[in-house]
Amino acid sequence: MDDADFDAQLRAAIDGKTKPLGALGRIEALAAQIARLQGTLVPRMDTCTLVIFAADHGVAAEGLSAFPQAVTVEMVRNFLAGGAAANVFAATLGAGVQVVDAGVAGAMPDHPDLIRRPVGRGTANLRHGPAMTPDQAARALATGAEIARAAPGDALALGEMGIANTSSAALLLHRLTGVALERLVGRGTGLDDAGLAHKNAVLAAASARVPERLSPDAALAEFGGFEIAMMAGAMQAAAEAHRMVLVDGLIATSAAAVALGRAPHIRPALVFSHRSGDAGHAAALEALEAQPLLDLGMRLGEGTGALLAWPLLRAAAAMLCDMASFDAAGVSRPA
Amino acid sequence: MDDADFDAQLRAAIDGKTKPLGALGRIEALAAQIARLQGTLVPRMDTCTLVIFAADHGVAAEGLSAFPQAVTVEMVRNFLAGGAAANVFAATLGAGVQVVDAGVAGAMPDHPDLIRRPVGRGTANLRHGPAMTPDQAARALATGAEIARAAPGDALALGEMGIANTSSAALLLHRLTGVALERLVGRGTGLDDAGLAHKNAVLAAASARVPERLSPDAALAEFGGFEIAMMAGAMQAAAEAHRMVLVDGLIATSAAAVALGRAPHIRPALVFSHRSGDAGHAAALEALEAQPLLDLGMRLGEGTGALLAWPLLRAAAAMLCDMASFDAAGVSRPA
Repeated sequence: MDDADFDAQLRAAIDGKTKPLGALGRIEALAAQIARLQGTLVPRMDTCTLVIFAADHGVAAEGLSAFPQAVTVEMVRNFLAGGAAANVFAATLGAGVQVVDAGVAGAMPDHPDLIRRPVGRGTANLRHGPAMTPDQAARALATGAEIARAAPGDALALGEMGIANTSSAALLLHRLTGVALERLVGRGTGLDDAGLAHKNAVLAAASARVPERLSPDAALAEFGGFEIAMMAGAMQAAAEAHRMVLVDGLIATSAAAVALGRAPHIRPALVFSHRSGDAGHAAALEALEAQPLLDLGMRLGEGTGALLAWPLLRAAAAMLCDMASFDAAGVSRPA
Repeated sequence: MDDADFDAQLRAAIDGKTKPLGALGRIEALAAQIARLQGTLVPRMDTCTLVIFAADHGVAAEGLSAFPQAVTVEMVRNFLAGGAAANVFAATLGAGVQVVDAGVAGAMPDHPDLIRRPVGRGTANLRHGPAMTPDQAARALATGAEIARAAPGDALALGEMGIANTSSAALLLHRLTGVALERLVGRGTGLDDAGLAHKNAVLAAASARVPERLSPDAALAEFGGFEIAMMAGAMQAAAEAHRMVLVDGLIATSAAAVALGRAPHIRPALVFSHRSGDAGHAAALEALEAQPLLDLGMRLGEGTGALLAWPLLRAAAAMLCDMASFDAAGVSRPA
């Protein structure tokens, strides 16, 4: 069956359900997206895994975060103990959680559930030189892809933890989408006005360090984080396996910009789950022509926004699979 | 403990969770709303029942809907058979469903799960006189309250079915909130331009029939539907029992306007679940100073929007109950 035939059948299936035409709004569009990705009118959307990639950033030495770098390790412990927001949301909403050491600077806990794949002990300070070598960037992308392929689930949600990673995200989004840097730089976890001005100055200097146009891979090596690179690799691999990819907030969106730059064909697998409260996320989404599902003023990361969109995916697929048609239910259509 | 003490403890509990201050945005506000309503820092939000009230409207005789009136009965059969969008969403998202004959015109199916509490066989035609007698309105309010008290659940979602009930909703919202009638009148299930113009003319004439200022109960009797009156009664009873009330789209919002007019103290129990695609819903929400959680362009009714917000309530309560504090998790706070 060719794409036009499939789309016609899909349209007929959705419009034949017992509801006025288009009355389920974006849930209908989401159902169509899932059906096309899986190539079936009765798509499965039963299981979701959140993979949280944690890594440290050399640029944290510039004092760009309200929290000390040690919080990256401390939060990894919190994820492993099940106490973080991402764990609580995942448990409530029926998603699994995996935690990956993508390159944390501190000593990691000895925990059987931790996936240990560090590319280094934090990136280099991007203020003064590339955050990663090209080899590190390639290894992080490949590792993310490998982890995504091994993680179960009809959908994959990607989350992250890494003190100072809004700085990497802002630079990547600036260089890959063309949105002005100052629109993308925000208070992160809670900078005051002086802290924000300092962050803006540091990131402007970092961007000016590499004036030439950059490919997605080159931008990733210059300004990325190991967790962002792994998320990008994971998004690409999951999408290429026809699995839905739930993109979280600002940092995950920077990974999506890298992944889309490398592999534009993966776009049909991506769901931009929410518009975050992070400065610049709205502008970044607009530049990527992405319409987020939720808008709840969240700016936590960890994949928390992606998890809140997971029930919407399940509801959308269930609409196609389980809802009665006018004919089957004996419901009259409009005159 | 007085309210100020409780609020201080609640603020400390939320701010002590392992996340930057305010980083969960509206989920934090929702958690606080639930905690205050239940009077505890560890609120329960495990169970939800959707009650769908179905009724017919005499004004349907004016030709205000794209669908024939028989669809009300047909959709009740569909609800009882589990084939409607509301059933599918409820099953997917872990909510129960109850179906109430609040006053349908046609012959109802003989089904053990149907709650038979009809106030009449459809309302009178509000174009030419009151839709209900004051006694019918009072009985419908009381019946809705009784059904709500009997329905289980930490949260109650209210849904409806009734051909032509966007007409009742527009008139009620116009008279109770002061929003201009023409902003509240929309295409319902799919009127064309001529149908919309006709609907506007009929509803303007109906409103002009009763020029004086109306109390909520009087407005309900003049312009309401049995299902809207029962929803209003159910909202008030559930809220007074300290249960969260999930308000759906345009029609449920008209019931909320009635309930809030009768009992303004119930406001802390209401969650406006979504901004619907129905014309006028955004204006009505604004007039009620209500910020909806979702905005997905849906306009189906049945409680479908309310159901999609149910996982957000669960996540919000779980944040308070299950998420670790900085102290318990050994995570550093900002310097």
